Amino acid sequence: MIDSDFNIKKLGECRIPSPMTGINFIDDTKRVLYDDELDEIKAYLNTGKEPPSFEMAGPKEKVYFDPSKLKCGIVTCGGLCPGLNDVIRSITMSLHNHYGVRNIFGFLYGYEGLIPKYKHEHVELTPEEVGRIHKMGGTFLSSSRGRQDVSQMVDTLERMNINVLFTIGGDGTLQGAHAIAKEIEKRGLKISVIGVPKTIDNDISFIQTTFGFETAVTEARRSTYSAHSEATGARNGIGLVKLMGRDSGFIAAYAALADTQVNFCLIPEAPFTLEGFLPALEKRIDQKGHAVIVAAEGAGQDIMECTGKKDASGNVRYSDIGLFLKDNINAYFNKKEKEINLKYIDPSYTIRSIPATAKDSAFCLLLGQNAVHAAMTGRTDMVVGYWKNVFTHVPIPLAVSARKKIDPEGWLWNAVIASTGQTREML
Amino acid sequence: MIDSDFNIKKLGECRIPSPMTGINFIDDTKRVLYDDELDEIKAYLNTGKEPPSFEMAGPKEKVYFDPSKLKCGIVTCGGLCPGLNDVIRSITMSLHNHYGVRNIFGFLYGYEGLIPKYKHEHVELTPEEVGRIHKMGGTFLSSSRGRQDVSQMVDTLERMNINVLFTIGGDGTLQGAHAIAKEIEKRGLKISVIGVPKTIDNDISFIQTTFGFETAVTEARRSTYSAHSEATGARNGIGLVKLMGRDSGFIAAYAALADTQVNFCLIPEAPFTLEGFLPALEKRIDQKGHAVIVAAEGAGQDIMECTGKKDASGNVRYSDIGLFLKDNINAYFNKKEKEINLKYIDPSYTIRSIPATAKDSAFCLLLGQNAVHAAMTGRTDMVVGYWKNVFTHVPIPLAVSARKKIDPEGWLWNAVIASTGQTREML
Amino acid sequence: MIDSDFNIKKLGECRIPSPMTGINFIDDTKRVLYDDELDEIKAYLNTGKEPPSFEMAGPKEKVYFDPSKLKCGIVTCGGLCPGLNDVIRSITMSLHNHYGVRNIFGFLYGYEGLIPKYKHEHVELTPEEVGRIHKMGGTFLSSSRGRQDVSQMVDTLERMNINVLFTIGGDGTLQGAHAIAKEIEKRGLKISVIGVPKTIDNDISFIQTTFGFETAVTEARRSTYSAHSEATGARNGIGLVKLMGRDSGFIAAYAALADTQVNFCLIPEAPFTLEGFLPALEKRIDQKGHAVIVAAEGAGQDIMECTGKKDASGNVRYSDIGLFLKDNINAYFNKKEKEINLKYIDPSYTIRSIPATAKDSAFCLLLGQNAVHAAMTGRTDMVVGYWKNVFTHVPIPLAVSARKKIDPEGWLWNAVIASTGQTREML
Amino acid sequence: MIDSDFNIKKLGECRIPSPMTGINFIDDTKRVLYDDELDEIKAYLNTGKEPPSFEMAGPKEKVYFDPSKLKCGIVTCGGLCPGLNDVIRSITMSLHNHYGVRNIFGFLYGYEGLIPKYKHEHVELTPEEVGRIHKMGGTFLSSSRGRQDVSQMVDTLERMNINVLFTIGGDGTLQGAHAIAKEIEKRGLKISVIGVPKTIDNDISFIQTTFGFETAVTEARRSTYSAHSEATGARNGIGLVKLMGRDSGFIAAYAALADTQVNFCLIPEAPFTLEGFLPALEKRIDQKGHAVIVAAEGAGQDIMECTGKKDASGNVRYSDIGLFLKDNINAYFNKKEKEINLKYIDPSYTIRSIPATAKDSAFCLLLGQNAVHAAMTGRTDMVVGYWKNVFTHVPIPLAVSARKKIDPEGWLWNAVIASTGQTREML
Repeated sequence: MIDSDFNIKKLGECRIPSPMTGINFIDDTKRVLYDDELDEIKAYLNTGKEPPSFEMAGPKEKVYFDPSKLKCGIVTCGGLCPGLNDVIRSITMSLHNHYGVRNIFGFLYGYEGLIPKYKHEHVELTPEEVGRIHKMGGTFLSSSRGRQDVSQMVDTLERMNINVLFTIGGDGTLQGAHAIAKEIEKRGLKISVIGVPKTIDNDISFIQTTFGFETAVTEARRSTYSAHSEATGARNGIGLVKLMGRDSGFIAAYAALADTQVNFCLIPEAPFTLEGFLPALEKRIDQKGHAVIVAAEGAGQDIMECTGKKDASGNVRYSDIGLFLKDNINAYFNKKEKEINLKYIDPSYTIRSIPATAKDSAFCLLLGQNAVHAAMTGRTDMVVGYWKNVFTHVPIPLAVSARKKIDPEGWLWNAVIASTGQTREML
Repeated sequence: MIDSDFNIKKLGECRIPSPMTGINFIDDTKRVLYDDELDEIKAYLNTGKEPPSFEMAGPKEKVYFDPSKLKCGIVTCGGLCPGLNDVIRSITMSLHNHYGVRNIFGFLYGYEGLIPKYKHEHVELTPEEVGRIHKMGGTFLSSSRGRQDVSQMVDTLERMNINVLFTIGGDGTLQGAHAIAKEIEKRGLKISVIGVPKTIDNDISFIQTTFGFETAVTEARRSTYSAHSEATGARNGIGLVKLMGRDSGFIAAYAALADTQVNFCLIPEAPFTLEGFLPALEKRIDQKGHAVIVAAEGAGQDIMECTGKKDASGNVRYSDIGLFLKDNINAYFNKKEKEINLKYIDPSYTIRSIPATAKDSAFCLLLGQNAVHAAMTGRTDMVVGYWKNVFTHVPIPLAVSARKKIDPEGWLWNAVIASTGQTREML
Repeated sequence: MIDSDFNIKKLGECRIPSPMTGINFIDDTKRVLYDDELDEIKAYLNTGKEPPSFEMAGPKEKVYFDPSKLKCGIVTCGGLCPGLNDVIRSITMSLHNHYGVRNIFGFLYGYEGLIPKYKHEHVELTPEEVGRIHKMGGTFLSSSRGRQDVSQMVDTLERMNINVLFTIGGDGTLQGAHAIAKEIEKRGLKISVIGVPKTIDNDISFIQTTFGFETAVTEARRSTYSAHSEATGARNGIGLVKLMGRDSGFIAAYAALADTQVNFCLIPEAPFTLEGFLPALEKRIDQKGHAVIVAAEGAGQDIMECTGKKDASGNVRYSDIGLFLKDNINAYFNKKEKEINLKYIDPSYTIRSIPATAKDSAFCLLLGQNAVHAAMTGRTDMVVGYWKNVFTHVPIPLAVSARKKIDPEGWLWNAVIASTGQTREML
Repeated sequence: MIDSDFNIKKLGECRIPSPMTGINFIDDTKRVLYDDELDEIKAYLNTGKEPPSFEMAGPKEKVYFDPSKLKCGIVTCGGLCPGLNDVIRSITMSLHNHYGVRNIFGFLYGYEGLIPKYKHEHVELTPEEVGRIHKMGGTFLSSSRGRQDVSQMVDTLERMNINVLFTIGGDGTLQGAHAIAKEIEKRGLKISVIGVPKTIDNDISFIQTTFGFETAVTEARRSTYSAHSEATGARNGIGLVKLMGRDSGFIAAYAALADTQVNFCLIPEAPFTLEGFLPALEKRIDQKGHAVIVAAEGAGQDIMECTGKKDASGNVRYSDIGLFLKDNINAYFNKKEKEINLKYIDPSYTIRSIPATAKDSAFCLLLGQNAVHAAMTGRTDMVVGYWKNVFTHVPIPLAVSARKKIDPEGWLWNAVIASTGQTREML
């Protein structure tokens, strides 16, 4: 049983009637279960405890802020992700059209945009300005990695009279947002901080899917299709694809399900050794004459030497599992004097810098709208989540409390094993 | 509170160990709640009743059929839907690779393939035969509409010693499958009937999403993008798109969310009149100079004259809302002597006959695998469902008990109203 | 032998050095042969006549206009075509970057934008303004059909001190441009009129390919793929696709070559009768069980009743060959009591309102650049053409002197006949 | 003036009437000029010499081989290229449908398939077998690199009674085909060898465009779009894309034209130094804050250390210009203590292993058909070419006599310079 706090902080009471009309408002008491397995819920009942649940997102009848006086800021941080522009556009459109907010600022280059020394200007966001950005990949507001001084950032918000800060970013960004929210609270300010979780790896906990993930899988399949063409196009052809996924192998796993021509899927959550993997690969080659391998970038880190380097966000730079596998596979067959034809494909940034698919666009729209609805009610220190197909409010501390990972014993990895035909353990 | 039967029928006890290895088997007792709103569940608890729940799908430790002797048949019925070939391929691959089944037949042209008089041959399905079909739209097995004599179909199954019949189809097909299952039971045969629900309209109850739906929305967005280009390309331009959706407007609603350039979304579930709609359209044109309208084919049937005709499946042929709107919009502005430029786009079959998107392909794979797992255990008269992101078993009578529709008071329609900016009621 | 005038009009002598640097200028004497068949050229030689040839397009060492004082206007007319925004963008960028022109105006809604009574504003075009428009379909400047008063249009050019008018449009637009050029000449003004020929049907004479055509074929293949899925998905399935092509069947012909699953291709240039076509279709159905038909909208006009109506551009509204064939095919088989399943697909505007393919984008870029180069030298009353893979200058009177059509005796139609397997004559 | 031999070898006289009906046959005397510049042609006339010209391809009234007894073989060699399956399909379909040939064999794994020791089986090619392969990337027949013993290959052709060998491949493959044709002639055999030129780099001389090139450019634009998103998404963002093009930069050049967001295009034909390039890049970054660079793999080989290694085809392994630029750009700005964000994208094999675009598919169809027509007439030692939009016959020695390269003084490179804004010389 989980014992975390699912409650959302609020700046104060909501007394102002929402200007939205013709809409069904969501009651504050509506909650959706965190766990919906019958047995788990029964267990809670038996102990008399209320099972953990998320507050449902949506438009509320009363709001906290007076829209006519509201000043909002939006910032995008960290690496690119398909749909960033959809989210920016949705927040802007919802503030403008649903609540009549007229002062919306885009801070440029992520949190840097809140730090005076960088001298980044900010953009005024209007429906015209953002009208067409959803057809572009990337972020209209540009981005940056790394931490910035929390105090200076809050100074900027105060100086500009910003009432709501929307932060679109991943784990580090949300931790930053939490720090900002705490500093705001410390200073007794009435500024709401609302996150929209962004991780192409889909690895934020307590959130079922994040935007851009589906687009990434769609694009990843293009690579695996190519890898399969290359593998079958040559004698003993091997197509090797490296995909994103530092700590969680969701993209690789779904790519393997989306293209069942994949024969091996390697992810961080399922350890393997070369001694286990290479003979399995050889067996496949001997039997079928070709093989397609997908590896998440975080796979097999334990069997390579660590680089020790860190990037601007403080993440350890990983050793390159793609090149490592390429070299070791070639060496293995070389030693056995078996001629193979290995083609290595690394789609890298193309997966994250394209425009969103239709479904992801719709998803971004709803995330943006619900972020606005939450902000208007003075909720703060929270992200908009998605759970069991319902939009939810998730406290930032809960969202960043753990990385979401593939359970090697769960149905997803089960399905991958079943589809690829790889053995569960290659140790 | 719902009072339906969620239990799955079985042909007998499972005594044979599954040949699958390296996989985590799903316990028969695992169930997922039908409703996961906290208040609803509490209400059940207070009355002491167990809340309704679905059996979880997945591979089981013991199976009912001896795979080595198994003969399976697959049939696809009704209209095309993206992913049909993925499902056929997945069932074939799973039977072959996971269970070692070697006798898999594809009946051609839907239920017709089971009726001797049509003299359709059947295809032997092997991994080689289905290896590449997922890159094609349509159905490798061809399809047909309409009912066939149940007794003759079961005769064929008996004569051919078929142990499992997989039926991939919509409402009518599932009703047919239920009738077959009942006839099988009456004759005391041990034949399992497993459905994979197919409805591009996403309108089967107790199932969250059906395969092909996401692909349809993806393709629909191409049409709305074009409609927007046309609308903005001419003075008082109006882009009008008709989309699939006889009884449920899911495709139209999601298309409106996926392309927020849509200004009016008309669906069967939300009644409107020309007197309400046309002035709203005029207002938009006057203000913005262009408009994009999306209409589900079943929208506004009450305001048109009924054709009275029926198609081969017995569905009433609907009046064409697209042409009706086109004519009435033109007439309305003509009368007002306002020049407009209306472009009508009807993507029709292109939406349903394309290959599946990556996500839909993965989804089809999992549906097919779970259909096979269910079949192997002798479950029958059921479909593989998907509920709150878990694959489930749904009794056919439950699945066909009602059409799933958009709740005009629910969050989805709320979001569409909010995005398009249309007024809730155009009466 | 052809006896037309291939010479280009000029406003005056070029005395100003081009500001372009690092570029190889094209000599004025460079010409490319109109006809490059060896026998034809020999025939010219024997008679002592110089074979007809086009002036080659490209940047010139000396220009006529002083870029620093130049005022340019751009207008897009007629129906949408993929690549319109690329051309607008290319002209703007080339004027700005290559010549330093700073006054570039976009007239809105086609020639209407030059007529005061419509009160359309015009847009100032800058690199920032047009920076992203190439990712959108449609036209950034909007369009309109129909003729406008030439005198008023030239008045506007005079009043605004426009030196160059770029007109992007089809046959009617170019005739309008020619009339404007004549009026300008009559008034003794120094205004250059440069056309960029636009016809999705690819039917402008003396121009090998027009922009957007390739994109149209790419999109058309999506429809024929769907039609084939539908045709093979049902018993005696027939997929019928109507494609653009009023007078010339290039899109339909190339669609048939791009998707060799097409069995019948009907174009305006190759007459047929129902008595010839329907039995041929029946034969195909009897032999193969399915058929795919592609019809250009202008096909078979002689066998239908004429509507007599005209559209705003003065084009006769054609009878709908798609619905005509659909009805007649159904009636034919109905009478014979053969059950068929005909699916009719009309991609209509989706083919013309999408963004350009990569090749078309590159093509639009070069058309726009060469239009600017031509304008700077004071050339006028001409369009930028493309002939034997070289960009050329074509006098407007020559370009509009005849529609380009498929030669039913030429290699293209030969190849279509060979690919579809249809008989040459279905009379 | 060029002095090469444009004449095509023939096995003997054509006496058998072609079984093709309803087609217009191409007269043997039809020829198209190699050069179509007016001045060049006049120069020839003045000297009394006939200007060089290609024989036009197409179906002929009389053929050399008796189709009913014909045995044909097809082989694909070298690296993958979009459209390979379209060509295989087209040759098979044309032999079968147009001439009634029933014995068509696919040799597997390139020329290896003709060498007994490899024990590769061959595939019988029928319309059913190849019916769907055009929707797959890669080659249905698999491929291999490297030379094989000519004598053994001709032995195989003799032993199998093959009358026509179709070889689909690049420079090395065509040299192999020429050697085979010479050996055949030496032995006095009546075997026709017909090539279909394959080079994704578009670098075969005397051939205007090769199949797959357009698809490659289409796919390359996806990478440059991503690179632009990445570049604008970060402070001082640099998007660096490496594209195919060992000796000729056509893909890179057209990618720069297809996406004018590219700021630097580096190709083998236009030398540059780091001392010229890096300051130009810095200037761009200082002015605009981002830059997109495209480099052909063969660019800048002279400024890197040579690897000295060779691949199986005997090509020297190039040093990696992508990584070289990445490292040197980073080092340059590092030294200047300017923070940049360089993202390196190497689409590599994805560009060559995807299915063909619509236009490329049509092109492959026509290449295949014309290869068949040529073969049936007993022409040999030739490839099917394409010149000034006409299909031609090109002697293999002529086709392999020189690599086609971008003329740094010609219109194409001119247009690239004009579009990117890069300076012509970065030395």
